[in-house]
Amino acid sequence: MIDLTSEQHNIIDAAFKRFAKFGHENVTMAQIAKDLGYTRTFLYYYFPDKESIYKASLIRRASGYFLAAQKELARPLSGYKKLEIIMRIKIECGRDFYRLGAYTNSMLYKLHIVDKDLQAIYKREHKMIASAISEGIKDGSIIKCNPEKVAQKLVDGQHGYMSVGLRKLEFADKISPATLEKLFKELIEDSAFLVQSVKAR
Amino acid sequence: MIDLTSEQHNIIDAAFKRFAKFGHENVTMAQIAKDLGYTRTFLYYYFPDKESIYKASLIRRASGYFLAAQKELARPLSGYKKLEIIMRIKIECGRDFYRLGAYTNSMLYKLHIVDKDLQAIYKREHKMIASAISEGIKDGSIIKCNPEKVAQKLVDGQHGYMSVGLRKLEFADKISPATLEKLFKELIEDSAFLVQSVKAR
Repeated sequence: MIDLTSEQHNIIDAAFKRFAKFGHENVTMAQIAKDLGYTRTFLYYYFPDKESIYKASLIRRASGYFLAAQKELARPLSGYKKLEIIMRIKIECGRDFYRLGAYTNSMLYKLHIVDKDLQAIYKREHKMIASAISEGIKDGSIIKCNPEKVAQKLVDGQHGYMSVGLRKLEFADKISPATLEKLFKELIEDSAFLVQSVKAR
Repeated sequence: MIDLTSEQHNIIDAAFKRFAKFGHENVTMAQIAKDLGYTRTFLYYYFPDKESIYKASLIRRASGYFLAAQKELARPLSGYKKLEIIMRIKIECGRDFYRLGAYTNSMLYKLHIVDKDLQAIYKREHKMIASAISEGIKDGSIIKCNPEKVAQKLVDGQHGYMSVGLRKLEFADKISPATLEKLFKELIEDSAFLVQSVKAR
């Protein structure tokens, strides 16, 4: 995982505030620099473009996610419980992104799909989830299934619910903190619904 | 449900072929007319714009869906089995749309959300699914749950998987019939995965 300097953390935070307010496409590097009292040259020293700020923030989010998930995975819980927790943490770590997501354009999705670092993150996540599923099958808390396949269904399902929720937001007159909070709660529920599909009863 | 004339069916078919090949935004009414050997004026007599052709095709798809679903609902099956079948039929009826979906822009989603006729279709679908869930709870094939809420999760979940699948297509070099067939099969599986969440075991 790439370590970020405190300058880089500051830049990501400032950029995200702007992205979330005006939409990714309507923000320039000059504006981000100005928010921080930096010169543009100083900003370019840390990040060559907006996409690299966005990517760095995804990596930061992933670090938080893996750290929190690993902690839970070490606890003496059933595989199903672990799976539930991992899926919930994922939604919680994405919280800052929901406002931004309403504006996120296809170009950024393309970045998700082709970038090597981000692909490594997806692989790591997939492996972590599949391993919790395997544990659950062994301890009887999860029904017999193909862990690799189910892990993919869970990850895609979460992304799907997110994109449905965000699409609704996109056409909302105003994206208020209350609207975002509602979306967040729905995603937590959707996630629980997905996991329930493999619960042994 | 609105009845379509055979001319209207022909127009929808021709328009869809073009939309699917070139993307909705790159097709003009003049081209659609030309494909059919019509004058533009003749085409405008049936549909005022591309969006109304798109909407008419959604309505046609919905008619097929409801017709097929009602048939199954009348059979002596468990509520869970009915739910499974309805969800599968939905995916099957959407088959023509997957290629188009890869190009579908936000403007069309906006149409989905605000159009009164389409909203009526969504309400009818939601009611039909919730009713199968209620049956399943009664006959013991579905776990205790809130039918209205679960119906929404199932519909949103299907849309979510579709949008994740279509996003992958959007960045594919070539959308071949084999790629579309793969997407279709995945959506059938995803759908079964969602329904399984409320299956009594």
